[in-house]
Amino acid sequence: MTTKTARSRNQLVVLRLGHRIQRDVRVTTHVCLTARALGADGIIISDVHDRRITDTINRVTKQFGGSFTIETGKPWRHSVTEWKKAGGRVVHLTAYGIPLPEIIERIRASHENKLVVVGAEKVPGEMFHLADWNVSVTNQPISEVSALGIFLDWMFNHRGLQEEFPNAALRIVPTEHGKRVVRP
Amino acid sequence: MTTKTARSRNQLVVLRLGHRIQRDVRVTTHVCLTARALGADGIIISDVHDRRITDTINRVTKQFGGSFTIETGKPWRHSVTEWKKAGGRVVHLTAYGIPLPEIIERIRASHENKLVVVGAEKVPGEMFHLADWNVSVTNQPISEVSALGIFLDWMFNHRGLQEEFPNAALRIVPTEHGKRVVRP
Repeated sequence: MTTKTARSRNQLVVLRLGHRIQRDVRVTTHVCLTARALGADGIIISDVHDRRITDTINRVTKQFGGSFTIETGKPWRHSVTEWKKAGGRVVHLTAYGIPLPEIIERIRASHENKLVVVGAEKVPGEMFHLADWNVSVTNQPISEVSALGIFLDWMFNHRGLQEEFPNAALRIVPTEHGKRVVRP
Repeated sequence: MTTKTARSRNQLVVLRLGHRIQRDVRVTTHVCLTARALGADGIIISDVHDRRITDTINRVTKQFGGSFTIETGKPWRHSVTEWKKAGGRVVHLTAYGIPLPEIIERIRASHENKLVVVGAEKVPGEMFHLADWNVSVTNQPISEVSALGIFLDWMFNHRGLQEEFPNAALRIVPTEHGKRVVRP
């Protein structure tokens, strides 16, 4: 079992493109929960503000610990170009990209901060060219939620699944049959 | 690269509990796409019929191949008890369960057919007792979509990501920067 703070690595932030208020509130919430649970440092939801999502995720972080950040409302292209200007690298998850097993070693070997981009239904063609790596989690139609989860699991060498979060008010205790939650 | 038909294994079917028509249409569609892309044989959406989901997924299967099945409308408890009566085993994905890395070997070692249960917001307490294994993909609040994706990736030894689907009308060709789709 490792703690988030003890693991030495660069920043990894998720960028959610194309969130549509109302329609995507549940799916984008799932993207945020996945990013947080699997060890990303934060998420940027581009172009819009959606208070329901920010409130939900900040409440989860307060209860279950860690320091997951959410930023909203900035144009997506601005986030991507700023990230690159600061020396970071950009991964774009898309069914059209290079299969994860073929490319993960190269991504892991690069020591720059990573921005991991996940789209909603339509991603602007420009994104495929701005990305350093277009990565596919299967070349099948899939969900950006599971693609992100699987990518992060591989990115962190399958070691993120039992990570403990610091400063948690609640902690789930693994149980064979039932539910157990404690206040540490 | 392996093809789905060439891989010898028992049946694995996903059971989606608690789907609420309207509210969950997008998330349940993501659950279905994830199940199909990662190599499950089919999905059962319990208790309700939601034609939009069935139509979407059947269209994807027709275009991208394979023989993914969808069954809807049966009470969830009936599906679980029938599965067990027929000698199959039941995995329930829940943040309260035993961590995936600790339990996956035991699940892989069992040769019975598997029913993999994923809930929506509230799962009846009875489910925790009907399951042979309650499995957590992190003990954090997470999405059932990414939990399912990561579970299937581990279940199939990380070999499902480059699987080819037979009888596809369309096939995505992995590309560094852009989109390429061919008719095989």
